[in-house]
Amino acid sequence: MRVGILGYGNLGKGVEKAIAANDDQELVAVFTRRDPSTVKIATPGAKVFAEEELSHMQEEIDVLILCGGSATDLPVMTPKYASLFNVVDSFDTHANIPTHFAAVDEAAKKAGKVGVISCGWDPGMFSLSRLYAHSILPGGKDYTFWGRGVSQGHSDAIRRIEGVLDARQYTVPVPEALDRVRRGENPTLSTREKHTRECFVVAKEGADLSRIEKEIKEMPNYFADYDTTVTFISQEELNEKHSGLPHGGSVIYTGSTGENKHTIEYRLELDSNPEFTGSILAAVARAAHRMNREGAKGAKTMFDIAPAYLSPLSGEEIRAHLL
Amino acid sequence: MRVGILGYGNLGKGVEKAIAANDDQELVAVFTRRDPSTVKIATPGAKVFAEEELSHMQEEIDVLILCGGSATDLPVMTPKYASLFNVVDSFDTHANIPTHFAAVDEAAKKAGKVGVISCGWDPGMFSLSRLYAHSILPGGKDYTFWGRGVSQGHSDAIRRIEGVLDARQYTVPVPEALDRVRRGENPTLSTREKHTRECFVVAKEGADLSRIEKEIKEMPNYFADYDTTVTFISQEELNEKHSGLPHGGSVIYTGSTGENKHTIEYRLELDSNPEFTGSILAAVARAAHRMNREGAKGAKTMFDIAPAYLSPLSGEEIRAHLL
Repeated sequence: MRVGILGYGNLGKGVEKAIAANDDQELVAVFTRRDPSTVKIATPGAKVFAEEELSHMQEEIDVLILCGGSATDLPVMTPKYASLFNVVDSFDTHANIPTHFAAVDEAAKKAGKVGVISCGWDPGMFSLSRLYAHSILPGGKDYTFWGRGVSQGHSDAIRRIEGVLDARQYTVPVPEALDRVRRGENPTLSTREKHTRECFVVAKEGADLSRIEKEIKEMPNYFADYDTTVTFISQEELNEKHSGLPHGGSVIYTGSTGENKHTIEYRLELDSNPEFTGSILAAVARAAHRMNREGAKGAKTMFDIAPAYLSPLSGEEIRAHLL
Repeated sequence: MRVGILGYGNLGKGVEKAIAANDDQELVAVFTRRDPSTVKIATPGAKVFAEEELSHMQEEIDVLILCGGSATDLPVMTPKYASLFNVVDSFDTHANIPTHFAAVDEAAKKAGKVGVISCGWDPGMFSLSRLYAHSILPGGKDYTFWGRGVSQGHSDAIRRIEGVLDARQYTVPVPEALDRVRRGENPTLSTREKHTRECFVVAKEGADLSRIEKEIKEMPNYFADYDTTVTFISQEELNEKHSGLPHGGSVIYTGSTGENKHTIEYRLELDSNPEFTGSILAAVARAAHRMNREGAKGAKTMFDIAPAYLSPLSGEEIRAHLL
């Protein structure tokens, strides 16, 4: 199957790597809003085109993977391109999912295409974990812990503070909270009790460090509700020790059948968040292509995808080797 | 939806409990090969019938859940009843899945019904974990550990030894092996290195204990390839400390994207194996009913079920609350 990538940041690069690892997929081209001549990609033979070229490449691409941001890119991009291609995105602004789903659904249905939204690990694999668990054991409770891992949104928020040159923020689950949930205690946990936030900050020379620390710790939504630590380090140390984008976490579900308790945990430990997310998008692209060929159209999420569609193997093979 | 249960052992009772916990499901009747007057069930209003009554109850039952054994019951039962009802089973004799699938597929297609085979946690949820992981990160390695939990098959095997009155066998993962896999070492592990087997045995008065212990430890397939411990205890102690049927385990998948490593773990800790398995069968029955109403027919496994079909909630609800 022939795949296109729109957007070549960390996620786009992760998708490219995933396509290279999938024998049944071929990267046709990366599409970019930058000057294509400035963008160098890793795949021999694949092209780099300006985004505008997409409008006449319907015959050459089976699925287009959209690697833009959820804030402003995807709300426009996904419906737009769902009217031309099967598309897959990683839209993760939770409150706006119904609106986004509806917009993609309308465009994709009109075009006879499939548009799979909100793919990745959360939303995505973690959502599947929650859905399976709730469906099997109704009335239980799900807990999601993120980290230890780098939050790019929180790192960006710190970088916008006056006097900050660079920053890396780690989201860290509180070990005691994790233990209590794993033990099946069903605790009620506040935001502060579930996660702490560790910030590594490079400040401009002469900047007021205590003002920066205060601004971070008091930032509403991002940090005010958490126990936050701020450590000032040099750019060299940041580059050396904090250049990766690891992430992960756990969905833990505790439920019961009468007096008998059951715990279900799905846990991820990822060296690279964008590469793992990109790998999921590539597998979902396979499913979107297949489902569309079988007549499916409209907006979908990973909830709507029978797992077999994600695999390059046949039904016989997965039953023989994985069941 | 109206559900029937065929077979009222531990699993049938687990399914009954699950149906009672599902607001959208109603148990019509339990069907049994025993004298129905000797079978007391827990659901007020539900009937107990002889198995033969099934042949004229097509109009009253939407899905029939088959709670027989994989050795001799299900190979006959599932194809037979797939020609009359949507059916769900927990067939787990791995080597015979292709044959079983083909037989159920033929019967179900002819009848326009759906027959979902091999549902539970392994095969079942563990299989899904393996499939999702392999599809996302091709070329990685999956490890399945079972336990700590009671293996009913191994307990039965001990009970068949001359001089044994009762027995309980626990399958226990080797902690070092689990740790090595979780650390991403990708070890090659022999059967003996992955699990140990703990046996609690009640012997007849005057029985030759060392002969019993030797027979257990040398039993081919069941124990010979494992480090096995045998502890003789009284029937009272067995009843008091070992009457439950806990189980669980982990599927751990280690894969990579280039130099970056990723670990995916799906872990279950179950107070009651048959009640958790029964809960899965009830959720799958919901999916079978829905898929059949939408025109699906033939044999399926959990690989073929879009997760949304397992939930009693609408697409809007699961997107709003679980995505």
